[in-house]
Amino acid sequence: MRRFTVDDVPTVLWAPQTPTGSLIFIGHGGGEHKTAPAIVRYAERFTAAGFAVASADVPNHGDRPYDPELDRTAGEMLAGDDPASAIAAFQHLVSRQTVGEWRAVLDHLGAERVGFWGVSLGCGLGVPFVAAEPRVRAAVLGLAGGSANAAVAAEITVPVRFVIAEDDERIPRERSLALYDALGSAEKTLHSHPGGHSDPLPDHELDAQVAFFTRHLLTHPQG
Amino acid sequence: MRRFTVDDVPTVLWAPQTPTGSLIFIGHGGGEHKTAPAIVRYAERFTAAGFAVASADVPNHGDRPYDPELDRTAGEMLAGDDPASAIAAFQHLVSRQTVGEWRAVLDHLGAERVGFWGVSLGCGLGVPFVAAEPRVRAAVLGLAGGSANAAVAAEITVPVRFVIAEDDERIPRERSLALYDALGSAEKTLHSHPGGHSDPLPDHELDAQVAFFTRHLLTHPQG
Repeated sequence: MRRFTVDDVPTVLWAPQTPTGSLIFIGHGGGEHKTAPAIVRYAERFTAAGFAVASADVPNHGDRPYDPELDRTAGEMLAGDDPASAIAAFQHLVSRQTVGEWRAVLDHLGAERVGFWGVSLGCGLGVPFVAAEPRVRAAVLGLAGGSANAAVAAEITVPVRFVIAEDDERIPRERSLALYDALGSAEKTLHSHPGGHSDPLPDHELDAQVAFFTRHLLTHPQG
Repeated sequence: MRRFTVDDVPTVLWAPQTPTGSLIFIGHGGGEHKTAPAIVRYAERFTAAGFAVASADVPNHGDRPYDPELDRTAGEMLAGDDPASAIAAFQHLVSRQTVGEWRAVLDHLGAERVGFWGVSLGCGLGVPFVAAEPRVRAAVLGLAGGSANAAVAAEITVPVRFVIAEDDERIPRERSLALYDALGSAEKTLHSHPGGHSDPLPDHELDAQVAFFTRHLLTHPQG
């Protein structure tokens, strides 16, 4: 694992066991950071399958300096009576910053064949990133809804695997389905499993995601 | 492939490449039969993974004698203005016959560790079968909705993988989700993919189903 900064953004890179030339960029969840235990678990899975894995701290997370203005904005937005919509709107705001930061990481690493992985906050920030970034060829998204991202989601055309946790206490299923439906991708699949918003993803779901990235980045790298 | 009859029900059995002692029983779809091309495709996948595979013709399908009374009943039920509900109700009626027939096939084969696979008609008939048959330890169901089966679905406790085709022209998504939600299983997962009701299931979905049955019947055979 190598730690470095790209334009002051703390970033981490895991090398694959057997390099394939493909990279998976992971957008971490809210309250997590680039080397949170869940992120390390995903990184171990993906590197074992031949992918380099990178992640970067989101503003106000991990090793980044505290930005009280961002926290205040979040507090104000979340004080309303529709927290699911407020979360999505806030993530959309933060993504104006992170899309550029994450693209700079890909530039820095010289990555050209990229998969994106992000759920919850990682999905909220990931939808605009995947829509904007042609180096991303496939994406795992989910645990997020929100109409704020629907128009941007429609611009996504790469294959998407979308994950829903059935007992998600934050995102009602209809919000998740609305974001999934909004995705412009012809090849999109939805996987739903029991569990709450912050429960670890089941092992078999990670297996299926490894197969998904392998299919789209390694087996059919043009896809 | 071996063909035989069990109490006059035409039945087929495929032997696995490397026997594991587990059997997958396939309930075919409406208008299909026990050796329809789609069924042969599934059987080849499952036998390659070590499962014996059996299927039997449903009344008024395949090699079974024509029953005009059953056709008339179906015609009357489907003439209403809620075809999705009518289909489910009719399948529930037919299942009174097929549950016993399929149990007799398991008896005949001496099967004890069984997976059930059935979508569309195979799901409509499969829900009461899986609920009634303790030898079934895991089930792939889907491409079906219907409140007629909801009470029976609640009695199912084994792991279920439920499949939805997103462009299903017969089963509205909310009907599918209602049947999925009604399942009593603690361990149930939903997989949705693009495609119409009768389109072939994607290869990657079959891969995931092989992994599902392997996990529940072979890796953790007590599950």
